[in-house]
Amino acid sequence: MSAQNPVFIPGPTNIPEAIRKACDMATLDHRSPDFAKIFRPAVAGVKQVMGLRDGEVILLPSTGTGGWEAAISNTLSPGDTVLAARFGMFSQRWIDLCQRHGLNVEILETPWGQGAPVAAIEAALAVDATHRIKAVLATHNETATGVKSDIAGIRRALDAAGHPALLFVDGVSSIGSMPFEMEGWGVDIAVAGSQKGFMLPAGLAILGVSRKALAAMETAQLPRTFFDFRDMLNSYAGGGYPYTPPVGLINGLAESVKMLTGEGLENVYARHARIAEGVRRAVAAWGMTPCAVSPELYSDTVTAVVVPEGFDGTAVVTLAAEKYGMAFGVGLGEVAGKVFRIGHLGSLTDAMMLSGLAVAEMCMADLGLPLTLGSGVAAAQDYYRGQGAAVRAAA
Amino acid sequence: MSAQNPVFIPGPTNIPEAIRKACDMATLDHRSPDFAKIFRPAVAGVKQVMGLRDGEVILLPSTGTGGWEAAISNTLSPGDTVLAARFGMFSQRWIDLCQRHGLNVEILETPWGQGAPVAAIEAALAVDATHRIKAVLATHNETATGVKSDIAGIRRALDAAGHPALLFVDGVSSIGSMPFEMEGWGVDIAVAGSQKGFMLPAGLAILGVSRKALAAMETAQLPRTFFDFRDMLNSYAGGGYPYTPPVGLINGLAESVKMLTGEGLENVYARHARIAEGVRRAVAAWGMTPCAVSPELYSDTVTAVVVPEGFDGTAVVTLAAEKYGMAFGVGLGEVAGKVFRIGHLGSLTDAMMLSGLAVAEMCMADLGLPLTLGSGVAAAQDYYRGQGAAVRAAA
Amino acid sequence: MSAQNPVFIPGPTNIPEAIRKACDMATLDHRSPDFAKIFRPAVAGVKQVMGLRDGEVILLPSTGTGGWEAAISNTLSPGDTVLAARFGMFSQRWIDLCQRHGLNVEILETPWGQGAPVAAIEAALAVDATHRIKAVLATHNETATGVKSDIAGIRRALDAAGHPALLFVDGVSSIGSMPFEMEGWGVDIAVAGSQKGFMLPAGLAILGVSRKALAAMETAQLPRTFFDFRDMLNSYAGGGYPYTPPVGLINGLAESVKMLTGEGLENVYARHARIAEGVRRAVAAWGMTPCAVSPELYSDTVTAVVVPEGFDGTAVVTLAAEKYGMAFGVGLGEVAGKVFRIGHLGSLTDAMMLSGLAVAEMCMADLGLPLTLGSGVAAAQDYYRGQGAAVRAAA
Amino acid sequence: MSAQNPVFIPGPTNIPEAIRKACDMATLDHRSPDFAKIFRPAVAGVKQVMGLRDGEVILLPSTGTGGWEAAISNTLSPGDTVLAARFGMFSQRWIDLCQRHGLNVEILETPWGQGAPVAAIEAALAVDATHRIKAVLATHNETATGVKSDIAGIRRALDAAGHPALLFVDGVSSIGSMPFEMEGWGVDIAVAGSQKGFMLPAGLAILGVSRKALAAMETAQLPRTFFDFRDMLNSYAGGGYPYTPPVGLINGLAESVKMLTGEGLENVYARHARIAEGVRRAVAAWGMTPCAVSPELYSDTVTAVVVPEGFDGTAVVTLAAEKYGMAFGVGLGEVAGKVFRIGHLGSLTDAMMLSGLAVAEMCMADLGLPLTLGSGVAAAQDYYRGQGAAVRAAA
Repeated sequence: MSAQNPVFIPGPTNIPEAIRKACDMATLDHRSPDFAKIFRPAVAGVKQVMGLRDGEVILLPSTGTGGWEAAISNTLSPGDTVLAARFGMFSQRWIDLCQRHGLNVEILETPWGQGAPVAAIEAALAVDATHRIKAVLATHNETATGVKSDIAGIRRALDAAGHPALLFVDGVSSIGSMPFEMEGWGVDIAVAGSQKGFMLPAGLAILGVSRKALAAMETAQLPRTFFDFRDMLNSYAGGGYPYTPPVGLINGLAESVKMLTGEGLENVYARHARIAEGVRRAVAAWGMTPCAVSPELYSDTVTAVVVPEGFDGTAVVTLAAEKYGMAFGVGLGEVAGKVFRIGHLGSLTDAMMLSGLAVAEMCMADLGLPLTLGSGVAAAQDYYRGQGAAVRAAA
Repeated sequence: MSAQNPVFIPGPTNIPEAIRKACDMATLDHRSPDFAKIFRPAVAGVKQVMGLRDGEVILLPSTGTGGWEAAISNTLSPGDTVLAARFGMFSQRWIDLCQRHGLNVEILETPWGQGAPVAAIEAALAVDATHRIKAVLATHNETATGVKSDIAGIRRALDAAGHPALLFVDGVSSIGSMPFEMEGWGVDIAVAGSQKGFMLPAGLAILGVSRKALAAMETAQLPRTFFDFRDMLNSYAGGGYPYTPPVGLINGLAESVKMLTGEGLENVYARHARIAEGVRRAVAAWGMTPCAVSPELYSDTVTAVVVPEGFDGTAVVTLAAEKYGMAFGVGLGEVAGKVFRIGHLGSLTDAMMLSGLAVAEMCMADLGLPLTLGSGVAAAQDYYRGQGAAVRAAA
Repeated sequence: MSAQNPVFIPGPTNIPEAIRKACDMATLDHRSPDFAKIFRPAVAGVKQVMGLRDGEVILLPSTGTGGWEAAISNTLSPGDTVLAARFGMFSQRWIDLCQRHGLNVEILETPWGQGAPVAAIEAALAVDATHRIKAVLATHNETATGVKSDIAGIRRALDAAGHPALLFVDGVSSIGSMPFEMEGWGVDIAVAGSQKGFMLPAGLAILGVSRKALAAMETAQLPRTFFDFRDMLNSYAGGGYPYTPPVGLINGLAESVKMLTGEGLENVYARHARIAEGVRRAVAAWGMTPCAVSPELYSDTVTAVVVPEGFDGTAVVTLAAEKYGMAFGVGLGEVAGKVFRIGHLGSLTDAMMLSGLAVAEMCMADLGLPLTLGSGVAAAQDYYRGQGAAVRAAA
Repeated sequence: MSAQNPVFIPGPTNIPEAIRKACDMATLDHRSPDFAKIFRPAVAGVKQVMGLRDGEVILLPSTGTGGWEAAISNTLSPGDTVLAARFGMFSQRWIDLCQRHGLNVEILETPWGQGAPVAAIEAALAVDATHRIKAVLATHNETATGVKSDIAGIRRALDAAGHPALLFVDGVSSIGSMPFEMEGWGVDIAVAGSQKGFMLPAGLAILGVSRKALAAMETAQLPRTFFDFRDMLNSYAGGGYPYTPPVGLINGLAESVKMLTGEGLENVYARHARIAEGVRRAVAAWGMTPCAVSPELYSDTVTAVVVPEGFDGTAVVTLAAEKYGMAFGVGLGEVAGKVFRIGHLGSLTDAMMLSGLAVAEMCMADLGLPLTLGSGVAAAQDYYRGQGAAVRAAA
């Protein structure tokens, strides 16, 4: 794999220079007041990106998986029931995690390619008169299928049912790239990871936690120490950290939120939407479709491209890596082989995206798919040039 | 705090250039075969550093605390009994973690400044005819007091008692700096962190796991997902990782073990011993003593210097930071205020250490302690120049 | 300008990660033996890249312009005559430099778009019975027009005329990217710069000097100190440097030659040829032509694309920078406005090049040129995929 | 040589992290408007550091030697007379350069250890009724002997003699570390290098040029192209550069002047004076003396320590490098073997300096010099702690 080409995996993303330099720090004494000078702006910026006003941000030296575990272990007790839809690899994994931790998961099976089933969620909540369901788990952006779910709709479903369950959202591959409104949507815990929209290396789970979720941690019985919010918040209050923090990553996060808010979150979202739409137009020009079954489900951070019957989507990814030194994502789980995935999030320009589309085309042509070289690129070019590319995109 | 001076905290350590550059990577697709090319030499090198032949190395995007949690949650079940001595802040924290996870901890209270009480451990094991004790927890190097414990002795105690308990060792601040022999000492799980002897930024828990401990994971009932060894080992077998790995840190670890084995582990240990002895001679020249109560307990990675009655050790640390831009460690827990700590592990030269001693002296003089400026430095100089400094120390 | 996109200027080129890290060094005492450990492999590698066996390599903290000045001031005396063809901005500048330094330049005026006129050179030498001409100056790759000259032909012309003049070649934008044979072509001084095929930042003039040229330095009367070969060679002999050397750049050069020879010079040249041919096919698909008037003149490092009459080539460059954050080169001198230039040298992949072609297309479409979006990209894709892209290109 | 220890050579200095990161740039198109955004603040900051108001700053991809050559070749003509004192290796080298370029140098021989002889200069000017002397050359800080000269005194001498000669000052190892006043002292050309007080890698000659010197360039007949101020200034006016500039170094210079002016030039000078005085107190404690013969000559950037008769100063430097991995400077020219040099300029803290003094002591003790270990360190400690160390020193 060439280290010269951008990556088009759905995270980790390409890391901007300024963030690489911010992460690459000499050792700083994390028990000195200097640590808080890094930590506090990072946290303040995350709140802005998440749309969180009243609540806390928790930073864990971990990943999205650790963020999921922290969300449930800090708020729930063994035997508690949670409601979750399964419609992709990442929603599946969170369900699995809950089960391993002794929760009872009420699973709403949903075809891959669709989003979280708002009506079914509302129905499940409506019948739960005893409020057995303690939390609703939702994957905002299912990275396996390129599907965006309607979190505001789930909030409405909770409200309509008058149900007090907590709302936990996996925003790992959406936060920082697509609009996310913790307060507006009444999200109780939002889980993000450093290596997606925040454009950092992997290694940090980033959680937004509402007051309501914080209250739940007082009674939660699931064991936790490394992930314990109480230790975190106690330490944060004094400008510290309960154990040795990954200072460089947190410094990088401070830079990341400065870049995102400097570009303007609306501009960041518009850039992701523009680049994504160019990809989708290329997909259409190839005569193919996204895995997401309808336009309102289209993710602006990843497109899972459905390959023709009889064709192995994984072959595109393998050939791109081996012949052209470029990384795409394979299909996972139920859609393994049926799709290949183009990540288009984080630090990207239209020009970079066009190189990804050009390579995808060459690979598919190499593999005998009947498409016209340049067709997808041209469709994206045509769209991009009409939109006015954002030269100032997070550099 | 000046970023120009070396740090003398007992971790994170000063990071060598080569390691900083290895960590600072462009994004690499962790699902590509390139990942294994980084991961495998890192793991092989860790085995060498830990003295592990038959067993597995687990790398977790976490810290030493996460490593402790992983050790117990992968091998034990709620209600299990573990035996542990409490003789410092870090042994205390591991005990607390076990209790939070529902284990029954049989605690051997031991004065701070002493090491793990081998005789008491042997006695406790001897009376445990039913083998209620599932694991013995030992802190190899208690970072709070600068005390090294006799792990080989604990192994002998287990053997003498014919007791089948697992032996878990916290080697966070010893591994890579002081001799450590997983096989030789019959250690079942050794926990290390990236930010000490491995000279990396924080963010990686590094575990060595024996076959016996691996067998225990099949029956362990403590919940875990993020830390689950089974997922790890299944993924490693195929050159992968169960979730997004911190590739840069692992690449840095590969560089670290190359540096350590390139210098020669015996040379690394000798360098640490030499630098530490210089520090202790300086302490003696100041008319003070280490917190560790006898020479065989002296740690080669950190010295907790006992300050005179009525004097606040924390003031040395504060003044050093504020006036001289240099970081030392404060006393923690029972010895808060009674000691200040000089970290002397990782990437250090004699010359760097002398600057730390010189600053400590100036601070103590500034604070009115009756010592002679230059006295500690001279004692260390005299020792170092007789030993032949290691110019080739991990650069 | 976005720092995320590759640059497509004809130098400085994109800098590979490994070279950036090699250049970014802590201070090293250049009077210590450590300096020679960096300097010597750099020099040995440059010899290999230049095809120099019997002679010396000189490294000057300077640029190509300084290299030109060093070439003449170390070998010639005021009033000496040199023979040079003028067929582009860089051949013009070298002529101007000679004139400023008091040389008499016999200029062979040659249309821009053509190469060094071998027949005219031979004719000029043939009539120079008194050997008034002390040196022939030739620009191997005229960066302004994208024209490659026939240096072997000039050597044959010299030999045919039995003329003893020195042969000085500007290989700034060819060496390391296109075949160059100092010995084979009888080149007496070859001038290269760090920021082209060597993929380094600007700051180093790299000269190959034959024995014959070294002999000339004994009698040369042009004043020089900073550029004096004698001081250089005297210092090199002892592993030193006559003044403070740019150690980081030289370390980067050592890495560069390791990368070039590691990839294999033949592979490096083939990669440049492949990428260049793709660019030319794109140009043809756009209905345009290179400035170079015939195929044997086509440069493999830069293509000057002739834009239609009435159209301003500079506008493409300006729009690409402002709207798409991508850098191309403007036309210079006689061809200002008539061409825009696409640099395709150094650290590049096919995928990167396709992003450059895609942006050039969008710009030309934006500016109203009647081309089909995707047409040039498709032509290049078609060519590249047939050639088997070099994933392992200098990373 | 260990890369972990600071260097104590009189340049290049230790490079601060922020400057290393500023220098380490991805390629930026130097013909785009982005270049001026880097160049202009760099130039503005240099003016501030040099105390230059009415004149120009010239940045050359070169070194101090190139700066000297540029100073004379842009202002003088073959056969012109210049007046210069010889009192160290660097004043000697500038004289040699002038002679090689065809100037007539009137040399005032001055013992090494003394500074520029103001009275003798005045006398020489007074007798030059025909104003044969076109320029006076002065070395502000003679790096070979650690001697600071009185530039204001030379200006007074010129004024007293009513002599119109230009005043050229080598400020390579003083500017940015010691007070320098181009306007106040009536300096016509000041020559600095990137690798001393500016704390950058070598590779940039930095010149301040007065209006009077700029006027001289119109009539100067010495040949120059690479160093030609006219090309430079023409290009600067349009935000450009006459050839490919070393963009990273210039970006680093912009960071450097931001750091220097951010710390406050007075604070920078006071820090250098404080650290230097500590070194001199250590030297006195060792029973030795600086090469500079009287206190008003003491340099604040380098101390040449005179070793006892019969002792080889070079041995200290060799042993420090080989045994302790630390770099000092050897004696040069007339004082070779008689001194060793301690550089104390650029990015340094008191703590770093103490490590240098401690190592120098160990080396001298190892070599049998009858000093007390710790004595020099203690003298410096005593001084530093009374002065209040500058934690915020250029980090």
